[in-house]
Amino acid sequence: MTAPPTDTDPLPSWRPGPVRDAVVGFLDAVVEVDPARRVAVFDNDGTLWCERPSYAQFDFLRHGLAGAVGRSPELGQRPEYRAVLDGDRAALADLGLPRVAMALTEVFADITPEDFDREVRAFFADARNPVLDRPLRDLLYVPMLELVDALRARGVTVCIVTGGGTEFVRAVSLDLYDVPPERVVGTMIRYRYERRDGRPVLLRTAELDGPANEGSAKIEAIQRHLGRRPLLAAGNSLGDREMLEIVAADSPSLALLVDHDDADREFAYASEAGTIADAEPITDIGRRSGWVVVSMQRDWETVFRAEQRPG
Amino acid sequence: MTAPPTDTDPLPSWRPGPVRDAVVGFLDAVVEVDPARRVAVFDNDGTLWCERPSYAQFDFLRHGLAGAVGRSPELGQRPEYRAVLDGDRAALADLGLPRVAMALTEVFADITPEDFDREVRAFFADARNPVLDRPLRDLLYVPMLELVDALRARGVTVCIVTGGGTEFVRAVSLDLYDVPPERVVGTMIRYRYERRDGRPVLLRTAELDGPANEGSAKIEAIQRHLGRRPLLAAGNSLGDREMLEIVAADSPSLALLVDHDDADREFAYASEAGTIADAEPITDIGRRSGWVVVSMQRDWETVFRAEQRPG
Repeated sequence: MTAPPTDTDPLPSWRPGPVRDAVVGFLDAVVEVDPARRVAVFDNDGTLWCERPSYAQFDFLRHGLAGAVGRSPELGQRPEYRAVLDGDRAALADLGLPRVAMALTEVFADITPEDFDREVRAFFADARNPVLDRPLRDLLYVPMLELVDALRARGVTVCIVTGGGTEFVRAVSLDLYDVPPERVVGTMIRYRYERRDGRPVLLRTAELDGPANEGSAKIEAIQRHLGRRPLLAAGNSLGDREMLEIVAADSPSLALLVDHDDADREFAYASEAGTIADAEPITDIGRRSGWVVVSMQRDWETVFRAEQRPG
Repeated sequence: MTAPPTDTDPLPSWRPGPVRDAVVGFLDAVVEVDPARRVAVFDNDGTLWCERPSYAQFDFLRHGLAGAVGRSPELGQRPEYRAVLDGDRAALADLGLPRVAMALTEVFADITPEDFDREVRAFFADARNPVLDRPLRDLLYVPMLELVDALRARGVTVCIVTGGGTEFVRAVSLDLYDVPPERVVGTMIRYRYERRDGRPVLLRTAELDGPANEGSAKIEAIQRHLGRRPLLAAGNSLGDREMLEIVAADSPSLALLVDHDDADREFAYASEAGTIADAEPITDIGRRSGWVVVSMQRDWETVFRAEQRPG
């Protein structure tokens, strides 16, 4: 084992035990690898930030929809939109997530990527989690942020491979994680090209370009977009299975699965990916495959950063 | 104007004159911009490295084809392959570049991205330019390498947006330009997903995923892949037009067009993009649009680095 680059503990929020040992072991080993091969990929929803009671992106789209219906009330009559605005779970389940998601995507069609970026940032400035009663931007997992920082301090290129919208996550990735946009890859929207006043302009459409970024799509995205096979992958759902599997084949490597088993400090639930059906829970697959399964309750001393109360 | 970060001239290979002044002016101005907006995109063939008498990627594919025909001589009877191996320009023109290019892509189908990467590196280890009689890896434009370094020293994220194959350029981008794979975007190949011995595997196909990365495809690639609008774009052909146009709208910005007018030290030719037909030469468009048009002959003191003669 090699000495870490500093004497300071890079993982103060990780409790002692085999999980922490495995993470530290990887940090010690990765500095011995060719720097060009030091790449780590993190899922976002449920891995870097809280995904309950709803995905941040869903909250954002609902917020945008509410604004659009304020301007054009007739929109509110569309079944997908009515179900979203009413929070009607039965209607949402009947319509199905893909149909509702695509309908919501139309709310932000025909705008430039720069305008979309501004909308996302404006949303994050004051969006709150209704159950945890805290701003969304405070609901990042502190132990994972420590791991991201420790990796970067060891020359590892840290990337985000999300099932969410690429541009949605990019709008905040630099501020929240210090990960620049080109290191974020997710579900892609199609663009429409126009010339306006003799200049090229891109406009968002309401169509996806390719499949939702889950499962095997994630490892294609890693190849096509990031171009290097990662040594570390962190995820929490069936949508992360393949990317956890490809790192587990390398050495040194770390396949890290977050198990949401902490009803007191966060939520207790079995993770699933919206678009993937599989009989076996991802935590069972992880234990069987020798991944490092993180129990939020047991392995994390801190989950979220301390609340900033207005003084 | 702001003082540059060091007293050393970052551009020793650029001759004094209005072109150099424009480049220095941009370097001075870019340090005043929000670091998150400091992004530069460079075309590769004819902008960072020499593209005559043939594209390096064409040489690579021909090299791979020769190897494949050595193993399976019957392949040499295919018209596209016979034309390539014979260097039969008339037959190549008749068949058309897209058909020939797709046939050549088949030579490297069904292998893993890692194997493809190794093939490209092995090719570059000793491939030579037959006209300039030097190794390909020596035929990078020194003034552009100086500009890339000067940008990086000023906190600019440097990316390559190439019409060539993404993976082909990525295989050498870190070694040649210090640009990591995720900052290279070009023409994309499709992958095929398989499970082998219970593990996910990706294999190259001979199909493109989307259009060749030229023209408006380049600005879509910048948005989708890099996620930020660049302040500097450098190119040399009609395939770079749109990306030069989008930066020219910003301030500070630099739209840099390399004019290959140096028959003594390199080549003199009017640049064109293989897949784009346009009546107006790109240098005329550039002058009319107020881009900075670099005359290789007039503006560059050095073109290539001094030859390393075996001592």
